[in-house]
Parts: sequence; structure tokens; C-alpha cells
Amino acid sequence: MEPLSSQAALDWVIDALAMELAEAASGPLSRRLYLGLRERIQAGRLAPGSLLPSSRRLARELCLGRNTVLAALEQLVAEGFLETRPGAGTFIADLPRLAGSSPASGLASAPACAAPGTATAVALSSRGTRLLGYSPGSNVRPGVFTPGLPALDRFPQALWQRLIRRHLHRAPTDWLGYQAQGGVPALREALCDYLRLSRSVRCRPEQILIVQGAQQGFELIARLLTDPGDRVWVEEPGYGGAKACFEAAGLELSPVPVDDEGLRVAAGLPAPRLIQVTPSHQYPSEVTMTLGRRLALLEAAERHGAWIVEDDYDSEFRYGQRPIAALQGLDNGGRVLYVGTFSKVLYPGLRLGYVVLPELLVDPCRRANARLHREGQYVVQSALAEFIAAGHFSRHVRRMRDCYRDRQARLREALAPAVSGGLELSEGQAGMHLVAWLDDHATEAALVARGVDQGIGLSPLSTYYLTPPGRPGLVLGYAGASEAEIARAGGWLCREWLALREERGVRDASGPGARA
Amino acid sequence: MEPLSSQAALDWVIDALAMELAEAASGPLSRRLYLGLRERIQAGRLAPGSLLPSSRRLARELCLGRNTVLAALEQLVAEGFLETRPGAGTFIADLPRLAGSSPASGLASAPACAAPGTATAVALSSRGTRLLGYSPGSNVRPGVFTPGLPALDRFPQALWQRLIRRHLHRAPTDWLGYQAQGGVPALREALCDYLRLSRSVRCRPEQILIVQGAQQGFELIARLLTDPGDRVWVEEPGYGGAKACFEAAGLELSPVPVDDEGLRVAAGLPAPRLIQVTPSHQYPSEVTMTLGRRLALLEAAERHGAWIVEDDYDSEFRYGQRPIAALQGLDNGGRVLYVGTFSKVLYPGLRLGYVVLPELLVDPCRRANARLHREGQYVVQSALAEFIAAGHFSRHVRRMRDCYRDRQARLREALAPAVSGGLELSEGQAGMHLVAWLDDHATEAALVARGVDQGIGLSPLSTYYLTPPGRPGLVLGYAGASEAEIARAGGWLCREWLALREERGVRDASGPGARA
Repeated sequence: MEPLSSQAALDWVIDALAMELAEAASGPLSRRLYLGLRERIQAGRLAPGSLLPSSRRLARELCLGRNTVLAALEQLVAEGFLETRPGAGTFIADLPRLAGSSPASGLASAPACAAPGTATAVALSSRGTRLLGYSPGSNVRPGVFTPGLPALDRFPQALWQRLIRRHLHRAPTDWLGYQAQGGVPALREALCDYLRLSRSVRCRPEQILIVQGAQQGFELIARLLTDPGDRVWVEEPGYGGAKACFEAAGLELSPVPVDDEGLRVAAGLPAPRLIQVTPSHQYPSEVTMTLGRRLALLEAAERHGAWIVEDDYDSEFRYGQRPIAALQGLDNGGRVLYVGTFSKVLYPGLRLGYVVLPELLVDPCRRANARLHREGQYVVQSALAEFIAAGHFSRHVRRMRDCYRDRQARLREALAPAVSGGLELSEGQAGMHLVAWLDDHATEAALVARGVDQGIGLSPLSTYYLTPPGRPGLVLGYAGASEAEIARAGGWLCREWLALREERGVRDASGPGARA
Repeated sequence: MEPLSSQAALDWVIDALAMELAEAASGPLSRRLYLGLRERIQAGRLAPGSLLPSSRRLARELCLGRNTVLAALEQLVAEGFLETRPGAGTFIADLPRLAGSSPASGLASAPACAAPGTATAVALSSRGTRLLGYSPGSNVRPGVFTPGLPALDRFPQALWQRLIRRHLHRAPTDWLGYQAQGGVPALREALCDYLRLSRSVRCRPEQILIVQGAQQGFELIARLLTDPGDRVWVEEPGYGGAKACFEAAGLELSPVPVDDEGLRVAAGLPAPRLIQVTPSHQYPSEVTMTLGRRLALLEAAERHGAWIVEDDYDSEFRYGQRPIAALQGLDNGGRVLYVGTFSKVLYPGLRLGYVVLPELLVDPCRRANARLHREGQYVVQSALAEFIAAGHFSRHVRRMRDCYRDRQARLREALAPAVSGGLELSEGQAGMHLVAWLDDHATEAALVARGVDQGIGLSPLSTYYLTPPGRPGLVLGYAGASEAEIARAGGWLCREWLALREERGVRDASGPGARA
């Protein structure tokens, strides 16, 4: 559609505007006039170069005050939609026409954001598409079996709020600004003591970098220490969040199998630049990496000149012997970056984690982090320092250890009939989830599908593998729901498993011919 | 050094441990014994396969209770440093020897984290090294001229704390957990109204994604929409923070010059996948992009199938006419991603920003963000929603606009003698900084160096350019310091500039021969 001829167009536009402005609507009239005119100029409905009526005439025809009209016109001139020529008047500017801007899209009919063509639907990058492969659908809601979700109902909210309030009150003004200290010093000190005593991490407080969650730690490490195309060894099966970060950094992911001694570094693996491990409590298989494997891994890292990212995400919760010492504490070569999170002991919405860095990486990591992600949340960090130093942290860990032990027991109890029937469960010596190993992928898929119907989200183990088909199973978080909820959902799962086994047994017994 | 022969080594180790344990030190004795033995086994000072004395004998020789000794030995067995053979006793395990683990590094002498060889000093990736090129040194502290630092002393702390307290109290337990809603709905609604009315952004609340600062928005966009090696157009001169994100994403950065109409998209530029612009108030040159250039840019993006990242970082503070409408509001093709931040209007330590997304990117961006960065800080988001909806936000913007206008005036006043002498300042129609254009790089370098001596950090304009040498000048933030501080520092800068001109004048007048 061509722009309307100058005079007719103007008259129609003024009429339409007068009607629009007469309607009850929110916003000042000058603003509404500005928007109405702008949309029409932008849509190409007014011919470039047309002379606008005088502000006096416009005011009269639109039943507006002259100042109202002037304010709108001035804004349009300032933005370049109108032009004034001294002694001649105000004109519609001659604007380049936009591809995709339809003259028909006036203010009334234009959608809030015009949907672009189908081209955009496939316009994600390849890495973006791969990234989404690790991202749960937007319809996935946290539920009774969500892995890694702590007991939010048992978190000492009142105490925590009291600490936050106190530190809000005390916060120096500096803390509101840009910081590049690696985090609040008191938090790094409290954390250093905790890590040394409870995790055998060897470090000084200066080596600790506070980040906004473990994910940010992975991101920082991947980008400061690798280039696109470099290789990272990831555990198979392993943690999707870390894999997403490495994909995002443009790395090649090499799956390295985990057996019952942990990551198995066989000869002939392509040389890595980075190695991601969860030695204390492998995610999701629950294996604790043996000392021999740990030393072999350190040796491999040394040989390849690679960095090790030790992800110690939930080993605070150990139900058997004391926590195993961190890999970082065995490392004499300065090759291990130890990543921890407060999401499990406190709560995920907190968005605080930390990286213990080898000495030589302290300055580069701190600077790159301040540039890429900025530091912040100093008040919360300060409150957390007190939470740790005053012993609330250890106390909460101990309480949650008891709570999670009970919740795990309740899950085992609920699944006991299936276990008697042959369902295999992981050891559950630590952490916040169990793995139920299944016999085949059909059972895995069937259980997940039945879960969807029941509103019970189940995490299929096979999706934790990079190389299909992966081992079938379910990763069952048990920390985030009450014992009653766990008993109910566990009972449901047990019945479904038994029913599926029954169906399959009947099919198997009647032979393939029966299906035809 | 070879491991000591079994019996002698054990005796010496036990003697040394007895002495160590007799000293006053913190930590339970069993822990200290465990650490002492572990360090020595790990350092290779005890021959693999050596039989350990019985726990009874160890207890006696170390003057410890037998349970204390047993606890330490059990932990070492659990971790694989010792092995028990039924009926035979407890032995030192045969561990792989580690490269870099020196037998000499016993507990007493080992540094907290052994410094690795010089290899590590250069082990950053190429992109890591480039990243650090955009990162200020760790000795750089925020000061009177720090660009982008708001008036923290004028922030309504008491009111803000009251809101935080109220929302802390009200927070549903869910908010502590993992979320993937794109942010607190109330905040997205309040923000949507604000952006529509004050920035002419066209959107629905669902299109807004709350992120932990604008940087996180850039990161998300770069990784979801580009692949390593893709090209991004960046403004020349332009913002280092965005450039750092693009480097981190493995992109090729193409500098596109900015003139007094904004980004100049000339023919022959290599095709981009992403375009980064600050059209409302170019950073750092202060140019407002003209409407013609805006439309040309949208057209170029459409032609190349590229995405535009509109970074609208401080245009709330406009001292002349009303804020210019956002580029996003002109876009009918769904190609503009509008990124904003609360760091300038509230404070940088808050770590909250937002991206207004084209409809088709809402779901992928929300999912990728939840996976890569996680969502959080829902209490703060909720408080911020009330801060905006109750009008505190607009009120604070208006107050700060007056405050910054005054601070800018004070800086101009302080620099007036230099301006009379020929120093050129940018227009200062908006924002929180001025640019002082300088005649040559020697003057820029000399002023920066003299600033270091005075503890006054100066941002050299030339470092905002990708292609050396860049135009010489200084980027002078004026929002974060009191008028008195600005007057003092501005006065100092003025004197230095005049003095340098004097020196140069003398040198020029006396000719090159005078220098020999």
C-alpha cells in the first residue's frame, strides 16, 4: 500500500486521532498524540515531505490544548519523525522504509511485538540449540523427586531473616557499588575454615572467589582457561548444568565413563584442556572416587597440562563415615579448581557459590569475574559469613543430615516391595538423591510418561548420558519433600514399577506371537 | 628422595607426630593425627606396604586415647591411604606417585597451595588473555571519576531496607527453590508499564526476562544466538563489558565507527550475526543515534538476518528533552533485544537487570537462562516491584536527575579555565559522565599517570577503542561523588591540563632542538 496523498491522509489521520484521543485511556494526552502520530509516520501512512497543519489548527481539530500539541510535536521533531524548516512549517520526515514494516500496521492493529517470519523460529545458533538440549522444558516444575532440591520448609527462615536485617542495617555504602575483592572478606575467611576442617581443602581465604552460584564458577573457568574447540572430559553419566556451561563456552565434550570406583581414565582418550569431576559423590551415580583413581586423575591432568574442576555439590550430607577429603587437598600441582555451592545447604534461590583457586589463578579469575559477571550481594554474603562463623551453618547441616537420612529411609520403605521384586537402588551413603536402576529404556519411558499424567516429575537417568542410549533408570531426589509426600509418591512409583513388570511378564510369557 | 626404609621411617614419623600433637593447636587430636599421617603417606615418606604399628602401640607412643587413634586410622582406611588385611594388620597403601608431589613436602613445610611451575603462569586460554585485556587491574578502586557509578550516598537506603524486610517476611517458600519463570511476575509487570511509558518499548510482561545484571543478558544472548567464530558489530568507541562478553563467547568483534549521528553502518562491512548498540546515549561518546541511522540499522539487521542488542544503560537521566524512544519500539521485525539494568538507578551491587525479548525468543531464553545462570533473588525482585509500582523508582530517578545535573555543572565549573583554554567537553545532555576530548595520546597518558600519583583514577578514552590508537580523551564519571569531591578533583584535573599545555607550548615554541 502506497502512502496516502498528502492532504487526504492528513485529514483522515487527524480524524482518527481525534476519535482515539476522545476515548477514555490511560496516559497523558500529549503522550497519546505523540504515539498516534509516530506510529502512523513509522508505518508509512503519511507521505514524507507533507506539511503538517499548524499546531493551532491541530489543537482545534483534536480538541486539545495547544501546549499539549506542541509537546507532542517537539518530541517527534527531537526524535526525527518530523522536521521543521524555518519559516515554512513542520514536515513529515523522509525516513528510510523498513523491511517488515507494513503500512497497514497502524497503532490500533499493530501487535505489541510483531511476530517475525518463520525464519526466526530456527534462528538459534547451533550451540544455542545444543544448550536447550540440556534445559528442562518450561513446563517442568519442581516436585517431590526433583534432584538437588533441599528441604526448604526446614530452612531456619526467621534466623536467616534476622541476620539479613542486621547486615542490611550495617552495610557500608561501598557495598552498593562495583566491587572486585572476590567477595566479602569475612565470608571468605569463614568459608576457608569450614573447608579446611570439614573438606580437607588446602587454601588461604584469598584463594576463595565468591560467585553467584556454582554455574557461574563453571562459566568463568571454562572461559578463562579454554578456547572454543578445546576438549573437556565430562563424567558419563554426568551433570547437565556443567555440560550446558561447557557447550556455551564452545568446548568439545568427551564423555569419560564412571564405574564403581569413579571416573575411569583409560589410555587413548583424546587430550583434554579441562576435566569435570564430582569425586566426593558422583552425580548422579553416587559413586565415591577411590584414592587410586584420584591420584591417577591428578597424574593425567598433570600429563595433559589440563585443569580439573572438582564439583563438590552435596557431600556435606554423608550418612556413613566422615566426608572423604577433597581432591583439591591431594593436589600439589595447582591444577584443581574446587567449586562449591550454597544452594544445597541453604537454598538455591540464594545464588551464592564459590571457587577455591590455585594461587596463580586468583588474580586473573577475580578480574575476569568482576568484568564478566560483576560482584554483588555483599549484604547477603556478610550475613552468610555470620551464619557460618556463629555455627548455624554446621548446625543446619547436621539437622538436614538427619532429616535427609529419614526421608531417604522413607523412600526406601515405600519402594521396598519393588526392591524385593528386583528393583535395584543406589547405596545412598550421601547426598540428596537415589538412583533406581531399571532393566530397559521402555520401562524408563513408561514410568516417566505415567509420572507426567500424575503430576510427578521423574528424571530419566538416560538423559544424564552424552552418548545414547545411556543406562536406563530414575534419579530420585528425596530431600525437598516431606516424608508423607515421599511415602505417597514412592508408593505410587512402586506400584507402577510392579504393574509394568507384571505386564511385561505376561507379554514375555505369552511369547511374541501373542502381540500380533 | 626415596621413601625411608619401613621401620626407621615409621619410628621417625611417630616421633614427629608425637611432638606435633603435643603442641597446642586447634582441632581435635584425631583430626590432627589423621592429617599428619595423610600428609606423610601422600608425600611418599612412608614406603607402600609397610605395616603400621597396632593402634594400641600408636596410642601409647603418641600419648593419645586408643579411640582417638582408631578414628584417625578408620578415616585413612576409608579414603584409601591405609589398607587392612584381615588377620595381618594395617598397611600403608601402594599409591601411584604424583608428578609434582615432592617427598620433602611434609605437613610442616608444605605451602597452603603449592605454587605450580611457570607453565601455569601462561596457561590462560587466548580468549582468557583477551578477556583480561578488558578487565581493570585488581588495584583499580572506584573513585570520584568512575564512569557509571551512581550516587550511592543519595540512595534511599532506609526505605529500601524497609521494603526488603517486608518482602523477606512475606516470601513464599517456593521462592527459595529453583525457578524458571523469567523473574517475579509483579516485577515484570511493573517494569513493563515503566518501559512502555517512559521508553516507548513495546512489550508484554511475559517478554521480560529478569537477569542478574545486564552482563548476564549479553552473555545469554551471545550464546543462544551465536556460534564461536560468528561476527558481532560493536561500537567504536564502545563499552568494554559487552566486548568482554562477546570475546568470552568466542565471537569475532568488528568495530563500527560512531560519528555525531551514532553508529555509521557503511557498505562493505562484514556480515554480522549480532549488533551491539547504545542508541539512546552512546557509551562513551554521548551521541544520540538519529532516527535515520536507527532505521538504517534495523534495515541492515533485517538484511543480514542479525540480532540487535540495544543496551539502554542510563538514559533515565536526561537533562534536555524527553528521553528518545527506544530502538526496540521501532522494530517491527522482532530483531531487537532490549537490555536494561538497575545498577544505575538503584545500585550496582544489586545485580539485577532485564532483557525485553522478541516473542519467539521468550521460551528459549528463559530456559537457557534457567539452565546456565539459574534464577534467584526473588525477595529482592519482589521488593523492587513494589519500589517501582509505588512510584519510588520514578521519584528517585527525578531526584537523581537533579542531583546529577548539579554534579555535572560542578564538574564543568571546575574545568571552565581549561575549557576557555581549548579543552573540549562532550554535551552532557544525558547520563552520568562527560568526555573530555584531548589533542594527543601523550596528554592522555600523562594525565592518567598523574592521576595514579594522586589516587584519582582516570579512564582513558583510547582504551574504549578496539583498533589502536583510538581517539585520546578522558571519560569522566560525575554521578558517584559529592559536589565537593568533584570540585576538588575537577580543579586538580584542570590545573594538570593547563600545566601540560604550558609545558608542551614551551617545548613546541623552543623547537625540537631544545630537547636534545
